[in-house]
Amino acid sequence: MKFSKHIEACSLSPIRKFHPCMVAAQARGIHVHHLNIGQPDVPTPRAFFDAVRNFQSDVLAYAPSPGVETLLEAMRDYYRTIGVSLSVDDILVTVGGSEALQAVMACILEEGDEILVPEPFYPNYTTFINLSGGRIRPIPASPETGYHYASRETIEPLINEHTRAILVTNPGNPTGVVLTDDEKRTLVEIAQEHNLFLVSDEVYREIIYSGEALSSMLEFEDAAENIVVIDSISKRFSSCGARVGALLSRNQQLISHALKICQGRLCAATLDQMGAAALYQSMTPEYCTEVREEYRRRRDVVVESLSKLPGVRFRSPEGAFYLMVTLPVDDADKLQYFLLDEFEDNGETVMYAPGEGFYATPNHGRSEIRIAYVTNPDDLRRSIELLGLGIAAYNQKQEASQ
Amino acid sequence: MKFSKHIEACSLSPIRKFHPCMVAAQARGIHVHHLNIGQPDVPTPRAFFDAVRNFQSDVLAYAPSPGVETLLEAMRDYYRTIGVSLSVDDILVTVGGSEALQAVMACILEEGDEILVPEPFYPNYTTFINLSGGRIRPIPASPETGYHYASRETIEPLINEHTRAILVTNPGNPTGVVLTDDEKRTLVEIAQEHNLFLVSDEVYREIIYSGEALSSMLEFEDAAENIVVIDSISKRFSSCGARVGALLSRNQQLISHALKICQGRLCAATLDQMGAAALYQSMTPEYCTEVREEYRRRRDVVVESLSKLPGVRFRSPEGAFYLMVTLPVDDADKLQYFLLDEFEDNGETVMYAPGEGFYATPNHGRSEIRIAYVTNPDDLRRSIELLGLGIAAYNQKQEASQ
Repeated sequence: MKFSKHIEACSLSPIRKFHPCMVAAQARGIHVHHLNIGQPDVPTPRAFFDAVRNFQSDVLAYAPSPGVETLLEAMRDYYRTIGVSLSVDDILVTVGGSEALQAVMACILEEGDEILVPEPFYPNYTTFINLSGGRIRPIPASPETGYHYASRETIEPLINEHTRAILVTNPGNPTGVVLTDDEKRTLVEIAQEHNLFLVSDEVYREIIYSGEALSSMLEFEDAAENIVVIDSISKRFSSCGARVGALLSRNQQLISHALKICQGRLCAATLDQMGAAALYQSMTPEYCTEVREEYRRRRDVVVESLSKLPGVRFRSPEGAFYLMVTLPVDDADKLQYFLLDEFEDNGETVMYAPGEGFYATPNHGRSEIRIAYVTNPDDLRRSIELLGLGIAAYNQKQEASQ
Repeated sequence: MKFSKHIEACSLSPIRKFHPCMVAAQARGIHVHHLNIGQPDVPTPRAFFDAVRNFQSDVLAYAPSPGVETLLEAMRDYYRTIGVSLSVDDILVTVGGSEALQAVMACILEEGDEILVPEPFYPNYTTFINLSGGRIRPIPASPETGYHYASRETIEPLINEHTRAILVTNPGNPTGVVLTDDEKRTLVEIAQEHNLFLVSDEVYREIIYSGEALSSMLEFEDAAENIVVIDSISKRFSSCGARVGALLSRNQQLISHALKICQGRLCAATLDQMGAAALYQSMTPEYCTEVREEYRRRRDVVVESLSKLPGVRFRSPEGAFYLMVTLPVDDADKLQYFLLDEFEDNGETVMYAPGEGFYATPNHGRSEIRIAYVTNPDDLRRSIELLGLGIAAYNQKQEASQ
């Protein structure tokens, strides 16, 4: 049977290939630490579960396609607290940030179109872009510049007649980069001058460490036609399993096109939307501060632990809960197999996300890995220690075999 | 700003245009009866809400991308009860049947491909097919043949080098047609001989009125490569707001391709999946019988009431909870505006879904409407009565103006 070339161009998760080795290691009694999973262990606020438990109707009916009214209003009010003025008509509730991304790509890209994405980037972007027929033109960023990319010199030479949009993650996954005000302004100006959409994935908005105020690209009201924001409750409220995100734009044509997709899929989950509305309604600055401080502690532990490892290079992340680390090894994929198949220290080993999957450019990121710091400080400390021991053992074995 | 031609080819729901008139009618104090909405009023089984309330973890975490294991197993066991043997690897949990449809279309269609769909059909199919770049080639069915379509003479002349699949809804929305065993066998053979996917949307499986056993296209094990089934808990358990569906196929290449999309969107809602697993685990034949009998009563009321209306033509539906009705009017769209803007009987009027939106062929279905019989018998009786009164008033006005 024949399949579409768009789906043929997509890949299964690169992490999957390690799954059998992980299962085998566990079967040998090895405890595997996880630096590879973006699932926080922070409790979901009770307000979510209370709202779901208090659902009163006998029938779990469809929600409206654009979203439950109380949730749309709660999101509008939340944006007002960070200085962004929106109408509920500028918001569509989506099935996680993922559906918002998928819908935007389907609306703005077609066969042969290009979208600029700073590299390394969130790998699932590739799937949604490929399905639309578009392709990623990577904006190069590198460990040397701390993965910052938002300059005219870097971006403008990449723009051609096929370019439709720039897609950024801010705060960044996998890099932890937070855009400066100047960088944001530069991106907005480039989008305006070249008639591009600027799609800003801001699902980690609250998780920033430098004391700056919360912000959104939607602050640039003069670029109303260009700016599209992807949002989600997953990280903000540690509620990844509730599939509630949002697509936000003052470009009413875009919203109207995306609504066609929302109507096609009928609605996002009714109960999850009730829970999400309660989360926004009960959100306090104290909650955000507490979550941020927890992640800051974890970041500090990771940074401190990594600093002790010889030959390891990285930059302390400014936001989100990830960082890219360059390891003193030839191939992070091979190291991962070694860590699962041959290595153990006191019955323990560690997993991470190898860097190559975060690059569109072939052979880039071979010596890099992404670390997610979503577990507790003790576990993180031990995980990084295991990484260091594993690197040493791997390089010793490599040298011995030469 | 430029938008993709695929999204430009999609439409907003044709029902939306009546919304302002409905709001205006309600503002005048008119009570509007709804024959236009597929939202059943049957209570959702308590097992769903109990499972959701009993969720124990502090963190609402991502579910696995292919679906929660207990739900996959419960679905497999459910299929066993209707005589279909599947492995959990043949099933992907999706965000409603809608996501399953969207994923299948993205996997099997590309620019210029054609998919055969019996007409009239569920309008949202158009959105998912357009987004993939494919197009619908309608298999003509008509009121005269009771909307049956599954014969070689009707289908084979429509197959060409662009044809990739046949998509059917069984039991049918909007027609209420249930395929006979011979018709199913014919479709399977055509798919096999012409190397086509046979995508069978079976979300109304339980709602059949002729005493036949529950069935699925998946029974045809000899066509494992061809057959893809779309399923959902929405209608089976009156739980439309829980976005839990499934994509089922023994074609492991298809499942592997669709899994790429499932991984891209991370997971379906965790709580809804818990609830869905409980629904399947606690499902009894008595529950299905009760629901079926309730819909049969409603169907009988609709059929009896429609039989009293002069000039109205229809065929008693064999399944699902819809039927197409040909009205003795020039234009069902115009009649709907008349019913909302000018008509009332005792302060009441009625809405339906005009037929044109269910056809891809231009100007077809102008005198047809789709009725959904999901409300209680008294309301249905009165709704059909209002329809009859409205038709008479509309035709009288038309004649008077000539």
